[in-house]
Amino acid sequence: MSEIIEPRVLKGFRDYLPEAEIQRSALMDVVEKVFRSFGFVPIDTPALEYAEILLGKGGGETDKQVYRFKDHGDRDVALRFDLTVPFARFMAEHVDELYLPFRRYHMAKVWRGENTQRGRYREFMQCDFDIVGTDSAMADTDIVLLIRDAFEALDVGGFKIRINHRGLFNRFLAKLGVEDQSGFILRTVDKKDKLEEGALLPLLAETIGEAKAALVLDYVEPAGSYIETLAKLEGLAGGPGPDSERLRLIHEAFVASGIALAWNDAATGNARSDAEILVLDPGITRGLDYYTGVVFETRLDAMPEIGSVCGGGRYDELASLYTTKKLPGVGAAIGLDRLLTALEALGKTSGKAGYSDVLILYIEDEFASRYQQFAALLRRMDLVAEVFPDKRKLGQQFAYAEKKGIPFGLILGSSENEKGILTLKDLRNRESVEVASISAAAEAIRERLGT
Amino acid sequence: MSEIIEPRVLKGFRDYLPEAEIQRSALMDVVEKVFRSFGFVPIDTPALEYAEILLGKGGGETDKQVYRFKDHGDRDVALRFDLTVPFARFMAEHVDELYLPFRRYHMAKVWRGENTQRGRYREFMQCDFDIVGTDSAMADTDIVLLIRDAFEALDVGGFKIRINHRGLFNRFLAKLGVEDQSGFILRTVDKKDKLEEGALLPLLAETIGEAKAALVLDYVEPAGSYIETLAKLEGLAGGPGPDSERLRLIHEAFVASGIALAWNDAATGNARSDAEILVLDPGITRGLDYYTGVVFETRLDAMPEIGSVCGGGRYDELASLYTTKKLPGVGAAIGLDRLLTALEALGKTSGKAGYSDVLILYIEDEFASRYQQFAALLRRMDLVAEVFPDKRKLGQQFAYAEKKGIPFGLILGSSENEKGILTLKDLRNRESVEVASISAAAEAIRERLGT
Repeated sequence: MSEIIEPRVLKGFRDYLPEAEIQRSALMDVVEKVFRSFGFVPIDTPALEYAEILLGKGGGETDKQVYRFKDHGDRDVALRFDLTVPFARFMAEHVDELYLPFRRYHMAKVWRGENTQRGRYREFMQCDFDIVGTDSAMADTDIVLLIRDAFEALDVGGFKIRINHRGLFNRFLAKLGVEDQSGFILRTVDKKDKLEEGALLPLLAETIGEAKAALVLDYVEPAGSYIETLAKLEGLAGGPGPDSERLRLIHEAFVASGIALAWNDAATGNARSDAEILVLDPGITRGLDYYTGVVFETRLDAMPEIGSVCGGGRYDELASLYTTKKLPGVGAAIGLDRLLTALEALGKTSGKAGYSDVLILYIEDEFASRYQQFAALLRRMDLVAEVFPDKRKLGQQFAYAEKKGIPFGLILGSSENEKGILTLKDLRNRESVEVASISAAAEAIRERLGT
Repeated sequence: MSEIIEPRVLKGFRDYLPEAEIQRSALMDVVEKVFRSFGFVPIDTPALEYAEILLGKGGGETDKQVYRFKDHGDRDVALRFDLTVPFARFMAEHVDELYLPFRRYHMAKVWRGENTQRGRYREFMQCDFDIVGTDSAMADTDIVLLIRDAFEALDVGGFKIRINHRGLFNRFLAKLGVEDQSGFILRTVDKKDKLEEGALLPLLAETIGEAKAALVLDYVEPAGSYIETLAKLEGLAGGPGPDSERLRLIHEAFVASGIALAWNDAATGNARSDAEILVLDPGITRGLDYYTGVVFETRLDAMPEIGSVCGGGRYDELASLYTTKKLPGVGAAIGLDRLLTALEALGKTSGKAGYSDVLILYIEDEFASRYQQFAALLRRMDLVAEVFPDKRKLGQQFAYAEKKGIPFGLILGSSENEKGILTLKDLRNRESVEVASISAAAEAIRERLGT
């Protein structure tokens, strides 16, 4: 016999066993439903692309995390490391076959050879949604409303969507005479939550002096409500402008659409108001140079320490690397892995190991065909039914059902056959009832499941 | 301005634009629902694995189609080229955390650097399902019943599941004294449909002589019904055995479960009988050495030329490369790409470009918040609603709706506002109606959509 190869996955990669995959897939189903409800459509792009496309022409040494290699045709190729770059390439290539504004979502895997010590995986699911081809504040609003609906649907408890406008911030910095340091300041402020108390001021002061650093620190402090904060920022930035006007429009439309939803909140006993969900937080800047307008982040009230679970913003040019056509847009990404971690910590995972409602136990060979027939009938009644395929001790078959979380067992043995009945066993409490037919069994199952 | 990089995908790769992705995702949803209804659970494995795992120790030169390279840690890695090998590794690694029999499905992408001239892609979706850890004929039956339910649900018209047993075939070959040539004969017979009329006999005769070749040719001809063919094969192979008994059991259970489904066939006017769906075809052998028991293929009545759209079989040892534990099983794979091609050719694709039911047109800036509110309300009524984000000419907004296949437009302009009404426009026939509220609009939309 040949030597056994040790079964193992690469460092930083993982298998999804059924329970984890069922949880992930349920999460994605919820999110996808919300995407669709806002008129977003799905696309897909290849996992593998020209390295030049993914990294840009100067990308030779820039990204050591990227899986890059020569293919059979000696082409320089790479695995995508995000969904934004492929989307930019996609829009540049297909914009004439499509229409604008284009609302797309894309849930797919990306790969990064990152250091795995921080508990990050080298393969993970990205979940992006964007509206491209419009500069409208209503598109920004759509993204924010979608985030709200998604997190409401995900049932993760309270959450806040923090929004800010980089243009307004830059207007303030210009007034302060430090617009040249804008990139540095925005990136530094973005790290605020990761720094120790009091560490931000000296960091900024080093470059722009203590007095201006103190003014920046004052700017990034919210001043109560969304509207109050907006008034403060407008004041500090030299008065109203298109940037602050946009923040006002988004808030107005957000709150208006929230009123529409009030009856639902009442029905679910979820009393938080929409005004509390959307927060104007001048400290949110998102580090990326890419963003030019509004930016946002989403945090769970119960788990602020895991950071943002959905962030994004507005950009002027999605695809300037690949086309001269101007494609402004706005979008965000949901951090599925963080969200799964959060759900687990909050005890909100289903723990579901399978979908089966009922196991048809295998008692006698002579009834094998009838077992299959029972299962087929139950499936037609929209129950998930499976036949245990082997004649094993009942204990073994019950143990199987338990591991898989199957709530019911259906038994046809010789004694049931003589009596012309079936035994339905609730495997959660070991109660048995006799039923006269498959329809009766289905009805009893439904009743006990409360469906 | 820097030079533009030409946006393009690698040869053999493709983008999925919304219409194609919506179609593919609808297909996968249907299939997934059937998988779940039989108690199958999803898993996922990494796209990238150790090359040794995917190719085996002797794999150095064997598979030129595989995308294989050195990663950052100088590990010899490869992209998976199917889902069977990763599943074998998965089972060897996790069998103690799971339970047996284990029913899993896995729908995911695989990569093969194949010659693309035959219209094949280098990246494609595989769709596998298996029951591992049992040698039972009932597991074989489950796979066949699942195939039937899946193709019924896919609504592809008539289809045949062709089944055979390689053990029975081998018994016949042993009786003929050519068991040493079994591998060659099975592989040759498997090509039957691709050969010209009359070409099979000389091919076989070269190796086993004309007389025996003629007997093999007789063996692979069905003899009428399943039961008649089974009797013929049993006769030629030297009488009944566990192999022919298994074929009988599968047929019996299949037909029994078919009767259960008869009411549905009657309801849909779909009069074909289950006996016609499952065909015993001794010419089906599946080329792979991997299979040891039953094998099957599925063809669409309307498109036999595209070949099998779902094939598989029983194997003795799934994971012998990675574990000494014996893991017999049975499984099959649906050819999603072929199926999509077939659906297109049969005019059965939806042609759906999006999910939106209604576009809220953007007429006046002052109503922007109300447009968002309308959309939010409609979504709460389970309609898919989107707001056009910019104030554009109505013609442009209608053109957008048309490209996206949105059936309704909802209009609030100054005149509607004065009258206290909304205009609902059926964009398919340009008919307009006045409605007094969003609820009334939703009702009118539902009525016209027939939902």
